[in-house]
Amino acid sequence: MLQIPSHITIFVYASDEGKRMKIKLISVGKTDREWLKDGLQLYLSRLKHYVPFEYTEIPDIRNTSSMSRDTVKAREGEQILRLIAPGDHVILLDEHGKEMTSVGLAKRLEDRLVSFSSDIVFIIGGPYGFHEAVYGRSNEMLSLSKMTFSHQMVRVIFAEQLYRAFTIMKGEPYHHE
Amino acid sequence: MLQIPSHITIFVYASDEGKRMKIKLISVGKTDREWLKDGLQLYLSRLKHYVPFEYTEIPDIRNTSSMSRDTVKAREGEQILRLIAPGDHVILLDEHGKEMTSVGLAKRLEDRLVSFSSDIVFIIGGPYGFHEAVYGRSNEMLSLSKMTFSHQMVRVIFAEQLYRAFTIMKGEPYHHE
Repeated sequence: MLQIPSHITIFVYASDEGKRMKIKLISVGKTDREWLKDGLQLYLSRLKHYVPFEYTEIPDIRNTSSMSRDTVKAREGEQILRLIAPGDHVILLDEHGKEMTSVGLAKRLEDRLVSFSSDIVFIIGGPYGFHEAVYGRSNEMLSLSKMTFSHQMVRVIFAEQLYRAFTIMKGEPYHHE
Repeated sequence: MLQIPSHITIFVYASDEGKRMKIKLISVGKTDREWLKDGLQLYLSRLKHYVPFEYTEIPDIRNTSSMSRDTVKAREGEQILRLIAPGDHVILLDEHGKEMTSVGLAKRLEDRLVSFSSDIVFIIGGPYGFHEAVYGRSNEMLSLSKMTFSHQMVRVIFAEQLYRAFTIMKGEPYHHE
């Protein structure tokens, strides 16, 4: 059982069913704009129909003005690592990661769903990226684009990709090639 | 002077100043969700501080259930082409386009701003993509990602990229490498 500090918000969108794999999405920083909250809510609520799903936002580190970027990333990293269980398969959303198509992501997820029982944790970092300790714990890195997207917007973009991936696995008509 | 049908909404976010280049963004289909409208509005209102900017949404084609995808794309294409002036430099957002970094996009835009007086038109297609007539009129194609994003969400993602590009050109602290 993980020890979750009480100030961290966790929304469990579907309960764990037996040994069924769970997908966790962790973001650094509160979603502070209403339009982003609404967009995120839309896709997270759709996802729960497909997979046990958990979304966590790590609160922004306070009083960062006197800290180096590396200190900010280290503090965020401690919070991130506390949310990861030993057997979790950790995938960082990172500009140095592998780019894949939406169908490629769906296949990748399906392969893990079929072959492994470990939970998959996707992590979206803060504006400065990840601390080396988080890189050290990661199993894979995924890049959404060569472009840099707003780290707040990335959570909505990626939630939509996860939803899209499940519609692709189920052969539903949401995705057009 | 272009003939714009009265049912097409055009928001001019800044008036043309002399011969200064204008950027136009054309999207196929109305933005129908409030959170997407709010997100788009945020970045379009920021963009007007940097460049004369015009955003146009082409209404969805009606009664498409009896039409082939190609017919839908042809109808959308007619509407798109009516909005393009002869000298415009046309860039399609298309999965077959070139991927570039945010800094790469900023440099590309800056080069054109410095060297050319023609307007730049970015076009985001509908869910089935572009008709061949639109491909025929295009000068460049740009891809945001190997992944397929919701075509409604692409307009917000790309508006943020355009805003980001101008902050990069001006050396403002919005973008972190």
